[in-house]
Order: sequence, then C-alpha cells, then structure tokens
Amino acid sequence: MREFDLLQRIYAANVSLGERVAIPPGDDLAQINLTDRRLLVGVDQLVVGRHVNAARTSIEQIARKAIARSVSDIAAMAGRPLASLVAAVLPPDFGQERAGRFADALRESAAELDCPLIGGDVAFHSDPSHPLICSVTVLAEPASDHPITRSGALVGDTVYVTGELGGAVEPDGTGRHLTFAPRVKEAIELATNLGGRLHAMIDISDGLGRDASHIAESSGTQIRIDAGRLPRHEDLDWQAAMSGGEDYELCFTAAGEVPARLGEVPVTAIGEVVESPGEDAPLVLVQAEGREVRADELGWQHES
Amino acid sequence: MREFDLLQRIYAANVSLGERVAIPPGDDLAQINLTDRRLLVGVDQLVVGRHVNAARTSIEQIARKAIARSVSDIAAMAGRPLASLVAAVLPPDFGQERAGRFADALRESAAELDCPLIGGDVAFHSDPSHPLICSVTVLAEPASDHPITRSGALVGDTVYVTGELGGAVEPDGTGRHLTFAPRVKEAIELATNLGGRLHAMIDISDGLGRDASHIAESSGTQIRIDAGRLPRHEDLDWQAAMSGGEDYELCFTAAGEVPARLGEVPVTAIGEVVESPGEDAPLVLVQAEGREVRADELGWQHES
Repeated sequence: MREFDLLQRIYAANVSLGERVAIPPGDDLAQINLTDRRLLVGVDQLVVGRHVNAARTSIEQIARKAIARSVSDIAAMAGRPLASLVAAVLPPDFGQERAGRFADALRESAAELDCPLIGGDVAFHSDPSHPLICSVTVLAEPASDHPITRSGALVGDTVYVTGELGGAVEPDGTGRHLTFAPRVKEAIELATNLGGRLHAMIDISDGLGRDASHIAESSGTQIRIDAGRLPRHEDLDWQAAMSGGEDYELCFTAAGEVPARLGEVPVTAIGEVVESPGEDAPLVLVQAEGREVRADELGWQHES
Repeated sequence: MREFDLLQRIYAANVSLGERVAIPPGDDLAQINLTDRRLLVGVDQLVVGRHVNAARTSIEQIARKAIARSVSDIAAMAGRPLASLVAAVLPPDFGQERAGRFADALRESAAELDCPLIGGDVAFHSDPSHPLICSVTVLAEPASDHPITRSGALVGDTVYVTGELGGAVEPDGTGRHLTFAPRVKEAIELATNLGGRLHAMIDISDGLGRDASHIAESSGTQIRIDAGRLPRHEDLDWQAAMSGGEDYELCFTAAGEVPARLGEVPVTAIGEVVESPGEDAPLVLVQAEGREVRADELGWQHES
C-alpha cells in the first residue's frame, strides 16, 4: 500500500473540518485559524503490546484509544478541542484492508471527539514483528479565562475525582481503557462554573497516586487522600483504585462548593491539599485502615 | 530509566522558549501564544532502519534529522518556525546515557532550527529488536501574506529548485540527508521578495520527480523539466538528481524575475508549468537526451 494513498484515505470525506481550516490536509502543513491567540498543544502515543494487548484489541479500538487519550489531556487543562494530527508506523504486512480500516477509525474517532484530524504521516516497519505505533498531537484552545494547570493547588483546597477508579484494564487487556469518554465537557463545565476556585487539574492516566503526586509536586504541596472515600469501581480495594491507571477521569483541587455531579458523571471529594512537611516528605499520603501509607510505595511508578 | 525523568531532561534548561510560551513543557499540554491567529501545523516521523541506517547513524544525527525534516515542511510553506513536539519510542535496552544524549540532541537541534521543543512523550518498546521511532510535530506561522501551498502553480510559471540535487543518501547510509539545513530563511526571503509571484512550493523529500508531481497534481497542471538544467550534485546523472530524494531543497514555481541566489544558496530554473494535456497525462515530463521521459517511470514511488 502506498503511503500517499493511505494519507488520502485518512483525509477523505473530512467534511466536518469547518471554516477554521484554511489549508486542509494534504499539503506540507495544514493551516488552522484560532479564535484567539492562545494555543494548547501536546502529544501522546500508543504502542501496541505496551498500551494495548495486541491479540485482544481491534484496529478500531486501537485507533479510538490513541485519539481519546490525547483528547483526555485537553480535558485535563479545561481546553476545547481544535484539531489532531496522527503519525503512525504500521507493520509491513499490515495489508491494505486493515490499513484502510485503521485510517477510517482514526478519522471517525477524532470527529466523534470534536478534534478533527488535519494532518498525518504513515510509515512502515521493516519487520512484521515490529509493533503498530501511533502518536497523536492535539491542538486546543482554553475554554475559560485561563487553562487549568497542575501547579495551581492551594493549601486548604479539597481534592476531587470524577467517575470511578480502578479496574480500567482487565487482566485480559479489555476494559474501560478502550471505551472511555474523555471528560472534556465536564472539565469545561467545571472551569466555567467554578471560575477562579478551580485551582489545579490532571487526567488520571498513570493511576491516581502518581497523577495526584504530579499536582502536589508542581504546586509545592502535599495531598492527603482518604482511602475510604475513593469512588472504587465495583468491589475493588483502595489500592487498585489508587494505582490501576488508565481511568482517564479528572483529579482536581478546588476551594468552596463543587457540584456532586457533572451531567451524569459523579464528583467525589477524596482528600485535601495540605502544606508540604518538607522536601523529602511524601507527595501523596493515603489514610487507610487507621494508618498512613505513602502513595509512592504503592508501586505505580514503572521503570522501563 | 523512568519516562518522567527523561521528559524532565528534554525540558531541562529550555530557557530559550521566550515570552510566547505561556505554559511551559511539563503540564498536560503546553500553551503558546501566537502573534496572529493563523497556525501552520504538521507531523513527520523517522523510523530507524527505514529513514536512517541503524549502524551508521549516531544518536545525535537521528535526533537532528528527525527535527530538521519536519522543519523542512515549514520551509515548504514559507512559514516561520514556532515550536516543536516530539513523541519517541526507544528500545527497552537503550540505556540511560544514550536516552539522555538523545533527549539533549532533540532539544539542541530544535533550538538550533529556531523551533524550540515544548512538549514530548517517551515510551519504550517491549523488545530490544524494535526500532527507535521519533515523530515530530511542528508549529509555525505564515511569514508572508499567505502560506505557499502546492496547489497554486499557474500555466506559464517557471519551475525552480534551490541547491543541488541527488546523492543525498550515500550507499552506506551517510550523506547530506543527515546534515542538511532546512531552507526556512531562503523560503521566507522568496515569499517576501516575490510576493504574489511565488505561486507554489514544496520541499524535496521523496525526490524531485515525485515532489514536482505533487505540485502538478494539486495545481491541475503538467510540469516539464529540462534534464540538462538540473543542478546535479557532483557528477551524478539526471535520473539520480530526479529520483534520489532526501535533498530537502525547495522546488517552487513563480512568474517573472527570480534571484539567482538566496544568500549562498543557488536558485536554478529547471522547467516550466504547462497546461495538462488530460487526466491520464503524466504529471511530470522530463526532456532528456532529445526525448521525453515520463517521470513517473523513474521508479521513485516506493510501495511498502
């Protein structure tokens, strides 16, 4: 399959780009016009065999997850999706039919998540044993006065999460990590309704323990989590809810009243932002079963 | 090596980002502020073993080529580089020292090419035999009234190329494709000086034959090239100059006078834009040795 043909297919029927795309896909670069001058941008990638199970995941699920996890980064900043670009490397024996389905699924997932595909590059591995890789760049605009970063948490804030945590990746590789809805709408609602009281936010990709520690570290604070208040998926224990990862829910800190639901998505207070006791102090402490556990001992920080 | 540590290293000492970067690397997304609302964006990628020779290419050369080929796409549109983002997948046994050198080289190459790195993601393969992959997204702004696309060529235009063509990839994998300077400055000078007379432009990555055919196809025209006028590298034949690829020079079409040099880079008239004789007619015809050769028979369009 020619690279050029595949790109043409990615771009085919891309009629939902709207007036903002001044130069559509197919040139050296695309041109998109912003409504203001502030651009949010980031890149994330998916490696088959690492981030999804090669045997148990369809082409369509791979494409959707690749797009959705990058769009989840937009939610984490309370951004409004603008456009996406994909770079993919496919095994050489991938075949025209599957490559076409993959391209279609990327385009459709991007459109479903209001983040239309405006650019891309497709290459092929030299060896059939090399895994499919898909990197997704997303562009977004702040949906409120300012984007919500990880570094704005203030001592005295309450810590919240949306939805349920844990068990997003089943032992066989299936699970919610293949079907989640990035919390874009909910994040924009939060930022709009809370205004300056919404201080810090992140999406939970590596597990609540690790992601909350990013907020604590960036903000120069400590976060204390009450294990008993964690909204656990089904009957999982609190450790699974803290460290499972791939939930793609929001974790945020705010002052004052916060709604108990955003649409149909529950919002749960799980802890508080406190002053850091010092440089070597744990970033996240969990109060569980009458004792305090350092969250960095839950083993979520994978080496590779 | 922890993913997080490597990203920190990519972002370390990134003091040249300037005032335009409102949210620096390290959050879910970065924020950059544009000078106007028109954004150029594209993605390209480099697969070790496909685009560079694994045994003959240093980590630093891989990093520089990955950044430079994406920046060359900015030149092709006469854009002004704004920022770059990198997603890389490294072999699991890559090692901390090499990973650190790679991160440093990405950051330094991006800074050298005025396209500072503002975001990134690093993942690891599951198997040491899987190749290093690096996708680079670039952001740019139009440097003139409007970006120069592939589709603006007009019948009667003269076709030009910058620099010399052919032999950019030596048989052993070394060569100019590892050291080229993207023609950003030259493209901006062209767009500024020629104004509305600069009609279409592309950078030569796949070989002049193939890239000129993209202009011809997008513009609904035919391009005729005089083989005797091609600025051939050393004593290469015209076929090598047409089909070698990886030159990263500019091919453009313009009306009226064009300077013979842009700084130290020669500009050579090599052909003309003519009316397409019909849908099945060749996009590019080469006049060589008293006959006409269809450029699409030169065998540059690689299947994979």
